[in-house]
Amino acid sequence: MRRVRYRVAASLDGFIAGPHGEFDWIVMDPEIDFAALVAEFDTLLMGRHTFELVQKSDRGFMGMKAIVFSRTLRAMDHADVTVVGENGADLVRELRAKPGKDIWFFGGGQLFSSLAQANLVDTVEVAIMPVLLGQGIPLAPQLVEAKKLKLARQKIYKAGIASLQYAIL
Amino acid sequence: MRRVRYRVAASLDGFIAGPHGEFDWIVMDPEIDFAALVAEFDTLLMGRHTFELVQKSDRGFMGMKAIVFSRTLRAMDHADVTVVGENGADLVRELRAKPGKDIWFFGGGQLFSSLAQANLVDTVEVAIMPVLLGQGIPLAPQLVEAKKLKLARQKIYKAGIASLQYAIL
Repeated sequence: MRRVRYRVAASLDGFIAGPHGEFDWIVMDPEIDFAALVAEFDTLLMGRHTFELVQKSDRGFMGMKAIVFSRTLRAMDHADVTVVGENGADLVRELRAKPGKDIWFFGGGQLFSSLAQANLVDTVEVAIMPVLLGQGIPLAPQLVEAKKLKLARQKIYKAGIASLQYAIL
Repeated sequence: MRRVRYRVAASLDGFIAGPHGEFDWIVMDPEIDFAALVAEFDTLLMGRHTFELVQKSDRGFMGMKAIVFSRTLRAMDHADVTVVGENGADLVRELRAKPGKDIWFFGGGQLFSSLAQANLVDTVEVAIMPVLLGQGIPLAPQLVEAKKLKLARQKIYKAGIASLQYAIL
């Protein structure tokens, strides 16, 4: 079955963005084979706030089908993505049951927590950047209960990035 | 020069204790040579809240000289430790200049942030436990500015603990 993978860069103290959404602390490591990584996925899943950041970025949707969770966006204004409102969890359940490549859960943290609570996220894969931010947008805010993980893969990059990939138990 | 090392267990999302001070999510790995680790240090540095937790623990001060930062504890009530009030940063400066083994900074996070801001902490050494807590006591709360790190050593333990040791730049 295809997996929903929360794949994200974080500071050592667990923030995925600075207090004002800053990403300037994220180190790009030339060792990382980004094309090979992207080839593992065919769908991007994200909340509205993350969607707005992705729209502004150079990288865009990386050729994938993009699904945005939002109660405020109007589908007719965003023909390039699928806007999902109330029944997002049902859609993720359907997507996981369909054949296809893996699904990249892009953020944000709050949406992660609600999907993880419904057992709809398979992995959390964090590239830990060599920085303490002290404040910012948390990796997994407002989980109702702690989630046990199993370390599945790890790699240390020369730039000092620790890539840790966990299965969510 | 001896170093001040913030050595702590944390969840993947950057908490050093649960919302009510819980430590039950911390995995002990028999692979870790605790005696060898303890032998690298001769002094424990901690805030008042951490001190109270250490007092209740079986491990205690592990044979080290213990220094507690507190404005409320009375030195006469705690003959087994050195209680430091207002001029804690000065004392840490003095300690670092004296010969001796390394100094284990035990917590809490807020005291870490204020000492790190004064450039009095040399390393942050985190044993990342395979868990997402979602809430709790942060690793480095209220840093006034982000702190860049340099990954110096790493080790993965069979229990799924990722030990990451950074120099604070």
